[in-house]
Amino acid sequence: MAAMKKRVYQILNVSQRRGDLSWWVDVFLISLISLNVLAIILESVASLWAEYKACFLAFEAFSVAVFSLEYLLRVWSANENPAFEKPIGGNLRYMLTPLAIIDLLAVLPFYLPLLGVDLRIVRMMRIFRLLRLFKINRYTRALTAINKVLKEKREELFISMTFTFFLLLLASTLMYYAEHEAQPEAFSSIPHTMWWGIATLTTVGYGDVYPITNAGRVLGGIIAVIGIGLFALPTGILASGFSEEIGKKEEAAHRHTCPHCNKELP
Amino acid sequence: MAAMKKRVYQILNVSQRRGDLSWWVDVFLISLISLNVLAIILESVASLWAEYKACFLAFEAFSVAVFSLEYLLRVWSANENPAFEKPIGGNLRYMLTPLAIIDLLAVLPFYLPLLGVDLRIVRMMRIFRLLRLFKINRYTRALTAINKVLKEKREELFISMTFTFFLLLLASTLMYYAEHEAQPEAFSSIPHTMWWGIATLTTVGYGDVYPITNAGRVLGGIIAVIGIGLFALPTGILASGFSEEIGKKEEAAHRHTCPHCNKELP
Amino acid sequence: MAAMKKRVYQILNVSQRRGDLSWWVDVFLISLISLNVLAIILESVASLWAEYKACFLAFEAFSVAVFSLEYLLRVWSANENPAFEKPIGGNLRYMLTPLAIIDLLAVLPFYLPLLGVDLRIVRMMRIFRLLRLFKINRYTRALTAINKVLKEKREELFISMTFTFFLLLLASTLMYYAEHEAQPEAFSSIPHTMWWGIATLTTVGYGDVYPITNAGRVLGGIIAVIGIGLFALPTGILASGFSEEIGKKEEAAHRHTCPHCNKELP
Amino acid sequence: MAAMKKRVYQILNVSQRRGDLSWWVDVFLISLISLNVLAIILESVASLWAEYKACFLAFEAFSVAVFSLEYLLRVWSANENPAFEKPIGGNLRYMLTPLAIIDLLAVLPFYLPLLGVDLRIVRMMRIFRLLRLFKINRYTRALTAINKVLKEKREELFISMTFTFFLLLLASTLMYYAEHEAQPEAFSSIPHTMWWGIATLTTVGYGDVYPITNAGRVLGGIIAVIGIGLFALPTGILASGFSEEIGKKEEAAHRHTCPHCNKELP
Repeated sequence: MAAMKKRVYQILNVSQRRGDLSWWVDVFLISLISLNVLAIILESVASLWAEYKACFLAFEAFSVAVFSLEYLLRVWSANENPAFEKPIGGNLRYMLTPLAIIDLLAVLPFYLPLLGVDLRIVRMMRIFRLLRLFKINRYTRALTAINKVLKEKREELFISMTFTFFLLLLASTLMYYAEHEAQPEAFSSIPHTMWWGIATLTTVGYGDVYPITNAGRVLGGIIAVIGIGLFALPTGILASGFSEEIGKKEEAAHRHTCPHCNKELP
Repeated sequence: MAAMKKRVYQILNVSQRRGDLSWWVDVFLISLISLNVLAIILESVASLWAEYKACFLAFEAFSVAVFSLEYLLRVWSANENPAFEKPIGGNLRYMLTPLAIIDLLAVLPFYLPLLGVDLRIVRMMRIFRLLRLFKINRYTRALTAINKVLKEKREELFISMTFTFFLLLLASTLMYYAEHEAQPEAFSSIPHTMWWGIATLTTVGYGDVYPITNAGRVLGGIIAVIGIGLFALPTGILASGFSEEIGKKEEAAHRHTCPHCNKELP
Repeated sequence: MAAMKKRVYQILNVSQRRGDLSWWVDVFLISLISLNVLAIILESVASLWAEYKACFLAFEAFSVAVFSLEYLLRVWSANENPAFEKPIGGNLRYMLTPLAIIDLLAVLPFYLPLLGVDLRIVRMMRIFRLLRLFKINRYTRALTAINKVLKEKREELFISMTFTFFLLLLASTLMYYAEHEAQPEAFSSIPHTMWWGIATLTTVGYGDVYPITNAGRVLGGIIAVIGIGLFALPTGILASGFSEEIGKKEEAAHRHTCPHCNKELP
Repeated sequence: MAAMKKRVYQILNVSQRRGDLSWWVDVFLISLISLNVLAIILESVASLWAEYKACFLAFEAFSVAVFSLEYLLRVWSANENPAFEKPIGGNLRYMLTPLAIIDLLAVLPFYLPLLGVDLRIVRMMRIFRLLRLFKINRYTRALTAINKVLKEKREELFISMTFTFFLLLLASTLMYYAEHEAQPEAFSSIPHTMWWGIATLTTVGYGDVYPITNAGRVLGGIIAVIGIGLFALPTGILASGFSEEIGKKEEAAHRHTCPHCNKELP
């Protein structure tokens, strides 16, 4: 039993050797996750749903079965991980890790009707199926890179986020006073005007709301010219942090020592 | 009396020790400012105003009372600051500092009707309530960073702002001559055409005005391709300056010593 | 015969000496390619096509004749290139190189009707004429620079592309659930909602689809503020890679020696 | 006479000493240029033109008189500049310098009716009045910085401009074939489709033209995601070149030597 638990733990973990059983399990799970995401997208097309409803439902049942089994095996074999060593307490603590919660929520909506939960709530919870996308997290560096960046640039992000919110608030309040009377519907309140503020300061500019009075246009012009660069600060910090993170590995290897004399370069 | 003034001065200043009375006063004032900003936003929603008018008015009266008391105490205790030491001249000079003016203007609209000022003017001055947002300035580095950047990059900003204005003027005048006859309303004059110019050069592109003649489209295309990068210069300078300012602390620790003599660099 | 083949090979290759026969052939071919691209553009204007149809057809026939001759000569003389030395196998292998395939496809649509191919297919294949634009590839560094960048930044591009797709998927699915009921036409399915997602995350913002519910606007605002910087990652990597590639020559001259031992750095 | 010519030359040149006659002439001319630009803008507002027509015409006559006198004096005194020393040949060669041509064209439209030129042509030439804006060139560094950048980054700009044009062409042609049948008006020809291409690739996105077919949307999405970063290359090169140019002076002075040991820093 203990040997079997150890074997299950090894198989479920990301394989280090291409071609062994654990590797094939990884390939199977990644494929299943990808197909699930594809299914969620295609299901939303009414004509496809009408024609292939049975296929979608069968695939959903199969996926839930596999993911449920995977979840149970992961919880059961968690004790093999030194961090969750204790027999029952360890398993419970593993169930509270973010990845385990994602695994659970991703299959939960399927079981709720069986538990007698109201169908309207179940329908709302179907969005949790999207969490299956995050299961891919175990196999890729992309999301962990984001996590690292968020931690590293925490302070910068907080200051610039505050500042961005400050800017959005100021722009929206001023514009509200300038345009409210001329366009009582589009600029009906400050929260509504923030929709204009975000569309303008991000330069998306859908064109559903825009100032029409002279005062509003002058104000809007000044806000656009000054605000856009400042509004881009947090996203710029995030992007440059992420870019650094991606480039780190490569840079670490070469370029920092002279290949001839092996001394460090400035 | 002198001891009390000193105590008041200490309490109103930003606390250096978490948990003492001055710290709790800071927390109270920051919370009150935040709630005031929230109230300004929520008041603008017609349905909320209709239902909770009494609450909003009561909260406004309470806030004005607190902020007025804060203002009077700050002016009275200003002598404790060596820069405003002289008994009456010092207090008056403190009243002319930007932060003190903000504090005054932020409560003034409430008292104007009592002074017999025309209600129409009072209504227009209600926008000064937004200045309460800037009271938060005492407690955060975000706005002081902006001030520093504006000072440091003064010359670059001035040159690139001139250049940006030049570009906007040129683009708008040319487009006015190209589109005026085809769209006499949207491009009715050069100042009006500047609205198109700003929307295009900032890439917001609401879509309320755009060229429809062939000449206007060719011109608009050339302006867009060439102009956008140049128009982004001042905002880019501002953003990079702000980004540097945020990153300074971190950088200050290492990298700022001369590799030859190991002394600190400016 | 062998001498003639060698001469043809030299003439068709890019000339190293301004003014000799090979150089004039280059100039002629570049001009013909440019005129072909211009013809494709002008043909699409209905009024020009109606009036100058005969000219366009004659120029097309002349161009196809020249490009066909060029293609045959290139295939025939390919043996002069050490990589395709073997008499017939070499010629066949040359025909499978990307540039040779482009050369063939660029003239093929003209001959298809003679081979009895259905005219509807021929009309669709007329778009292959655009491949003539890529023939210019032999004479300019611009496209080879792109190729190099794509190879060099392969890994970074793959990670950030995955991430971008992930972001687009997440944003579109969430927005689909938020707006589907209010706007069943514009947000009819997740693939359709991706059109909104791309327009927003690239900040193009045509304004043909945008959220109108409060939930959708709050979600759209958050997606826009956070997503734009991250969505710009792959294009940023591509752009900076291309920019580096252009600047490499210049940089190569100086700055690439180790300050300690003065030897050249890689 | 020769002494007077020398004095005129000195006065018209940019003054090096604040407060002398030449300095006051500079101030006067800069003010007059600025007022002229303001007049051109305000004239275009129909209501202002109707009311103050006489003022505008009088100011125009006065400005033309001053600028004509300035032009004649500059041509006459050009011999004082060692580059245009020869009595008549020098004056003629000065008249062919870009700044002199701008000076002439900026006043020419006023005199044309007197020379019997058709009034329709004169009206079209009124746009030359805008050239007065460029007269400011003598007094500011902003435009000379642009000139320097254009020269320095010539090669990079040419390659990336070619590439940008290539991209625009490819995107527009593909989109033309995808959308022409569904929207024969908005995508009536490839040149017309370029208007969509520019609006999309610069992310302006007015929303007057956008793909509506599925094929067009998929194509448009791919073009937007890939193309935007690449399209921003030339403007990015221009902007960074200009930014470097502005920062050069400052950087040159300090930061490149250690203030303690005066050795150069890496």
